[in-house]
Amino acid sequence: MISTRLTERFDTEVPIVLAPMAKVSGGRLAAAVTGAGGLGLIGGSYCDADWIEDQFAKAGNARVGCGFITWSLAEALKVTPDLLDRVLDRRPAAVFLSFGDPMPFAGRIHAAGVPLIVQVQTLRDAKRAAEAGADVIVAQGAEAGGHGEKRATMTLVPEIADWLAQNAPGILLLAAGGIADGRGLAAALMLGAEGVVVGSRLWATREALVHPEMLKAAVGATGDETIRTTVMDVARRLDWPDRYSCRVLKNPFTERWHDDREGLIAAADTIAPQWTAAWEAGDVTVANTFVGEATGLIDEVRPAATVVGAMVDEAEALLGGGWRHR
Amino acid sequence: MISTRLTERFDTEVPIVLAPMAKVSGGRLAAAVTGAGGLGLIGGSYCDADWIEDQFAKAGNARVGCGFITWSLAEALKVTPDLLDRVLDRRPAAVFLSFGDPMPFAGRIHAAGVPLIVQVQTLRDAKRAAEAGADVIVAQGAEAGGHGEKRATMTLVPEIADWLAQNAPGILLLAAGGIADGRGLAAALMLGAEGVVVGSRLWATREALVHPEMLKAAVGATGDETIRTTVMDVARRLDWPDRYSCRVLKNPFTERWHDDREGLIAAADTIAPQWTAAWEAGDVTVANTFVGEATGLIDEVRPAATVVGAMVDEAEALLGGGWRHR
Repeated sequence: MISTRLTERFDTEVPIVLAPMAKVSGGRLAAAVTGAGGLGLIGGSYCDADWIEDQFAKAGNARVGCGFITWSLAEALKVTPDLLDRVLDRRPAAVFLSFGDPMPFAGRIHAAGVPLIVQVQTLRDAKRAAEAGADVIVAQGAEAGGHGEKRATMTLVPEIADWLAQNAPGILLLAAGGIADGRGLAAALMLGAEGVVVGSRLWATREALVHPEMLKAAVGATGDETIRTTVMDVARRLDWPDRYSCRVLKNPFTERWHDDREGLIAAADTIAPQWTAAWEAGDVTVANTFVGEATGLIDEVRPAATVVGAMVDEAEALLGGGWRHR
Repeated sequence: MISTRLTERFDTEVPIVLAPMAKVSGGRLAAAVTGAGGLGLIGGSYCDADWIEDQFAKAGNARVGCGFITWSLAEALKVTPDLLDRVLDRRPAAVFLSFGDPMPFAGRIHAAGVPLIVQVQTLRDAKRAAEAGADVIVAQGAEAGGHGEKRATMTLVPEIADWLAQNAPGILLLAAGGIADGRGLAAALMLGAEGVVVGSRLWATREALVHPEMLKAAVGATGDETIRTTVMDVARRLDWPDRYSCRVLKNPFTERWHDDREGLIAAADTIAPQWTAAWEAGDVTVANTFVGEATGLIDEVRPAATVVGAMVDEAEALLGGGWRHR
């Protein structure tokens, strides 16, 4: 039994939250994580309203939330002004925002009575999230898969914990980045987190929306074999802000283009369709496998409930039976 | 009481090792860490034999070891063939090697009956260190200050722990990078480490050989304000292998040159003497302050014994009184 303010406030059995991974964290995975005692979040990231509603339907009666890429949400609302309202109408367990300024959305989310989780990559961003009224801050380290920035989980969590203790003790703190088993969960609790957000380890589950070839590539890779790069965003023609890069498995595509971003931009008309075709075909030599350094801790694709259960059992054993956050 | 194989084999009271920081970890700091129950290592890094012997003398009767930058040691032995033998003649508590292939030195160190500690930055290097016969492997994450590579402590430690458990269970594992207080120590133990190597937090102590202006800069900085770069190695004309970069506080010098390494190389005849003069004067706008992301967890320069004591007390409190590695 690991009890923290997260398990109390969100009425979960375990302090584990599913990262709302774009196109990966569908309703089925979110429901599985909630069903296992954690909190499932649908990855509404690139803001396709129909896809999101379909995933909420797939989650059935499970209590799940929804996450967005903040800058992408700002763009999407210009085209689909009611997108966020439609999600809020479903009374999600939480809305999770990452990668951009949460301030413009915080009011509407709070007005709907929905808890706001803001993921940050720096201490500076944590202060901004607190100012915006976040209920929960997630400190995401650069070891994470997918988009992120430069700081490591190991220092970002305790530094934000200290700042919150002094300035905003009511805000909960979770850790993300590199947490794939009970060791990572226990370590995160020691660092001052009150729970964890898990991406890669739940990406490699039966319920995740991931191509089998990508799962196979990740299971076979060590943590040495990832890279932070922006080549896939050029190939996908996504306007990610410069400060963020994206951790994926190294492959011939990253080898070719990582040090030649300008060349890739120039060749994008040819390359982009190739990348997209490779993505759909599961060709991992071209399309990128979105997984973090924790890929080296993943040796099998398992059901999400098995992953969640094993994380908690291992953490409890390490912590000597249980843990209550003080 | 935190008991691990490190405290047993090295007969220390606490599982804390001083990072052998070049020109910073002198005999006085090493002796202070040993005196506080840990293991002090002199930073013999750039291999000035007279300086090293002087620091051993300053350590007095304290049992201390010595660390080297491996590639630099290989260079130094071409000029001073007996340098390593002179250190081994002093019967150091350990020799610590990082940044290069330990294989050429392992035999001589073992023949002298001295334990070999090898710091690594990747799983691949850990395998090489095991092959070389390391007694202890240190998994160093990129959040560390000074030289390092890309992987994070949070994933590198458990991944190497798993590999060692399967392949070389007799080798001890320590964690380095981002560990500056009892939270970091407790987290490292959860991840599978049997102790920690502490750099930045012991850099910011009264006994460390650091310019007061640099201490002041580090105490005032957040963890957001560091950068991994190679500009200081160009300025110092040090031939560091390409794979390594060095974490320091951002300053006007890194702002100017980090994205223009070629320009810096071209201007090095002018810039190098300026950097060196700034280093000696403690001008932190030019010379770099060598500290890791953990700078954000350091708010005061303390005696080393106070730092070590506080780390252990805090970790014990988090771990519920004590810890015995299983």
